[in-house]
Amino acid sequence: MGEKQRIVVIGGVAAGPKAAARARRCNPDAEIVILERGKMTSYAGCGLPFFISGMIHDFSELYKTSYGMPRDENYFGKEKNIKLYTRTEAVSIDRNAKVVKAVNLETGEELNFPYDKLVLATGAVPFIPPIEGIDLEGVYQLNHPDDALKIQKALDTGEIEHAVIVGAGLIGMETADALFNRMVEVTIVEFQNQVLPGMLDPDIAAKLQRHMYEEGATIYTGDKVVRIEGKDGKVTRVVTEKHGLIECQMVITAVGVRPNVKLAKEAGLEIGETGAISVNEYMQTSDPDIYACGDCVESVHMITGKKVYAPMATYANRHGRVVGDNVTGGKSTVKGILGTGVAEIFEMNIGRTGLGEVQAKNLGYDVITAIVSDLDRTHYHPAHKLIQIKLIVDANTKRILGAQAIGQGDVVKRIDVVASAISLGAKLEDMFNIDLGYAPPFSTPIDPIIGAASVISNKEKGLAVTITAQELKEKLERGDDIVLLDVRTAEQFKTKHIKDERVIQIALSDLRDQVDKIPKGKEIVTICPMGKRAYEASRILQGAGFEDVKFLEGGLNMWAYDLEIKKK
Amino acid sequence: MGEKQRIVVIGGVAAGPKAAARARRCNPDAEIVILERGKMTSYAGCGLPFFISGMIHDFSELYKTSYGMPRDENYFGKEKNIKLYTRTEAVSIDRNAKVVKAVNLETGEELNFPYDKLVLATGAVPFIPPIEGIDLEGVYQLNHPDDALKIQKALDTGEIEHAVIVGAGLIGMETADALFNRMVEVTIVEFQNQVLPGMLDPDIAAKLQRHMYEEGATIYTGDKVVRIEGKDGKVTRVVTEKHGLIECQMVITAVGVRPNVKLAKEAGLEIGETGAISVNEYMQTSDPDIYACGDCVESVHMITGKKVYAPMATYANRHGRVVGDNVTGGKSTVKGILGTGVAEIFEMNIGRTGLGEVQAKNLGYDVITAIVSDLDRTHYHPAHKLIQIKLIVDANTKRILGAQAIGQGDVVKRIDVVASAISLGAKLEDMFNIDLGYAPPFSTPIDPIIGAASVISNKEKGLAVTITAQELKEKLERGDDIVLLDVRTAEQFKTKHIKDERVIQIALSDLRDQVDKIPKGKEIVTICPMGKRAYEASRILQGAGFEDVKFLEGGLNMWAYDLEIKKK
Repeated sequence: MGEKQRIVVIGGVAAGPKAAARARRCNPDAEIVILERGKMTSYAGCGLPFFISGMIHDFSELYKTSYGMPRDENYFGKEKNIKLYTRTEAVSIDRNAKVVKAVNLETGEELNFPYDKLVLATGAVPFIPPIEGIDLEGVYQLNHPDDALKIQKALDTGEIEHAVIVGAGLIGMETADALFNRMVEVTIVEFQNQVLPGMLDPDIAAKLQRHMYEEGATIYTGDKVVRIEGKDGKVTRVVTEKHGLIECQMVITAVGVRPNVKLAKEAGLEIGETGAISVNEYMQTSDPDIYACGDCVESVHMITGKKVYAPMATYANRHGRVVGDNVTGGKSTVKGILGTGVAEIFEMNIGRTGLGEVQAKNLGYDVITAIVSDLDRTHYHPAHKLIQIKLIVDANTKRILGAQAIGQGDVVKRIDVVASAISLGAKLEDMFNIDLGYAPPFSTPIDPIIGAASVISNKEKGLAVTITAQELKEKLERGDDIVLLDVRTAEQFKTKHIKDERVIQIALSDLRDQVDKIPKGKEIVTICPMGKRAYEASRILQGAGFEDVKFLEGGLNMWAYDLEIKKK
Repeated sequence: MGEKQRIVVIGGVAAGPKAAARARRCNPDAEIVILERGKMTSYAGCGLPFFISGMIHDFSELYKTSYGMPRDENYFGKEKNIKLYTRTEAVSIDRNAKVVKAVNLETGEELNFPYDKLVLATGAVPFIPPIEGIDLEGVYQLNHPDDALKIQKALDTGEIEHAVIVGAGLIGMETADALFNRMVEVTIVEFQNQVLPGMLDPDIAAKLQRHMYEEGATIYTGDKVVRIEGKDGKVTRVVTEKHGLIECQMVITAVGVRPNVKLAKEAGLEIGETGAISVNEYMQTSDPDIYACGDCVESVHMITGKKVYAPMATYANRHGRVVGDNVTGGKSTVKGILGTGVAEIFEMNIGRTGLGEVQAKNLGYDVITAIVSDLDRTHYHPAHKLIQIKLIVDANTKRILGAQAIGQGDVVKRIDVVASAISLGAKLEDMFNIDLGYAPPFSTPIDPIIGAASVISNKEKGLAVTITAQELKEKLERGDDIVLLDVRTAEQFKTKHIKDERVIQIALSDLRDQVDKIPKGKEIVTICPMGKRAYEASRILQGAGFEDVKFLEGGLNMWAYDLEIKKK
């Protein structure tokens, strides 16, 4: 090249700086410019709830490198030889002249940035629900560091006793957790019938919701905020459709984000069916000299092949690297995504990858699933904790479609294992030959995720016949004449059990001798805390000639309801 | 079937009971018998070091189910309808008559057990090195719960101040850790030139060895025990070839185990090239009515296709399930293994899967590797810890061959991810599209394992030129005229750095301005703690026209040596 290549990046948060830095490493000579509307760049948006919660004391941690360097104009200039313009908004793209027109938001000065390759990393903006009172003081979103600083300032006054979170998505839930850690009472209002509706199946979500309820959070699912009321311009309460008034001093709306595609749209670039910028696997837009990455683009789902909008930090970074390669002459690609997501909420770890059961069924898949409760490491290791894992398999092709998990133990490792397996096209049989590491401080000789695969295989062979906690609850409430056989010891049974006259207790070790005590001709559901003894019991009864025997899948640990059964 | 099927299982520790229990679930009617020479069954051999260390207080935890049921004759009889004979040794197999002859070790009574299907789960026995003094009181192995009880009893006398561990394999290292936790000084003597020679590459092993040394353990690698000396029949010291005398009150030999194949051999069953029982993928021996599983059989390596001997708890359980299926008419299979192994030693987590670099090279592979140092979660999350990950890729096919890792952070998850990927035939490119879960408490937006894949890709593209810590050390000791450029800030540099006149310090942010300070025409090695800034610096220098620039792979965190360089 004679002249130096000019690369202009619009957006300085995650994908943009990553693309710029990668481009720099690939091409030491290019002129690289980042335009960022805000003051701060390269901040960790995912860390904002941890700042509010008080876990991160020093705000600057969120925009420093791991070695303590704030990512500012100086850093980009000195370490990367990248020219960063903050408070500089790109206002239009002249694709023919290959020039970005921008304005300095401080001075009003108009600037022109000619480019050879342009990178759009314009991110997403939070959707602000059109509710009466949304403009009152005390109503926030949590998208930008400035939001976090405002929320923290409000918390520091000591006047916030109760906060309402609108939306039980990931940001809403993490924010609720953060406020809870600051001793603020929280009420979460969610329009759909479960928490984390975009992320978890109802059964796993019910377990999380129950846990949060037991910890002291109030959650109104299937409800919505009608209006926000205030006094002297400050929020004082929220009015919900079903649960009436909630007195509060703070409202945080977290009802999702929208891709910021204004610039791209006005420049005539193709916008996809999801509303985000359409890109090919090289992250090129419909204009081959313009790339886009991060929260403003759409992705392809690895399993369905369909376009999806998935604004997540990992994708932003992956995109950035690929764009950095390609604007400097490379040919890197981004393949599909699985929508893997993990979080820690009220000291519960949750995770999911691939398709959920409901999602898969809605897409027309015939699925077979299994839920297991298990310890995340050997029971004799003092650090062991409980986890529940759900595995979702295509009943026809046996392809692994997804997994979801919840528990105080290590669920994330298992989600990552399944994500790896799905990425490489794993089928059910493959799960049994994945050679996972075992040592007592880390896992069990048969890992819970392999245990989940075994249950699916046992279902296919007819060895395991199960019922889910929700199905059982409905059956009991309906008044079905069934036998609920709890196979723990009498002593273990005493501690906590479903309270209903249909429950009988026979310890597994007595079952073979006392099989005559069980009424013939009825549907039998065997139960125990983990589901293991109940499975064993179901096999004993099936072997003894009982015809309609099921065990409670995932055990009582999946029972996310009151123990007292109220017949309808 | 007219008559009930008779299944006889020889061996009651791991694979045997698993096979029997699975067979019971598959076939409620079969007559199932387990013969076990010892008193205890189904104990957790992997938990023995945790019992010695004092972490597990109640010995019975090691042979109870997770719901507190001791796995004895009563448990097997009542819960499983399996007849367990303890203290009953199988002495021969009459394959024509299909009868196992056994003897009750308490009464001397001879017993015959006719079988339709026989399962050999005879396990392994520790190899006792033929050293003078091996029979002295105070010399132990750690293979059976009885060994652990004896060692604990000796520790409880308070007379054990110093113990010598012979062999730095996994059992030796875990035992050293356990004794160290009991405030016993330990010296480990290992014949090979590194710790965990069967498990880790020398670079990762050096890092572990250095850590243990800094914690206070004495490790003599490349040495051997010549004899053990005693007084009044009790051990008083060990004589080593290179390091002379070690006063001690306890010696534990841990130099490996051998498959227990006596019975199989005498019955004329095929023994494989590894010395273990040869089985097909259905776990059948050369006699189709005799199955074998657990520590007495050989496995197939998933990558090389070669037979290997890999006595591990996970395989025993996997085998047991398959054998349980197949002795009851199923057709389950066991595919190859990757030899995945993980452990916690002196509060360092270590792990490996697949082939190591040295192992792969010895097998004729042309490999490309990368080591990265990284945090296991975001730096702003207080729980973050350091890890080092090494990824090993076939330079020709780009297939992932293996990974090794060490650190106080979560290395096991990354090993499991790679194990999953290798099991499904992953190539380097596939790593970039594995959709791992990210949230600040669990990981970083670009997971360290993906970071390692990136380094390999950067090496292939010529962007990353590296040197390993060991190569650099040799270079410096040899007196090579190189420039060692530390790119931390002056303040960070002060805390800890390589002490040598060839070291110069220029902060990364000053490097572009001060590039003239660096002597031309010399080999330059850039260094920093993690390797990230050093990589950036190497790109700056390469861009500025320096021709021979490398960065220290994995950073100073991989420097397992003294900081003072002693030229040879």
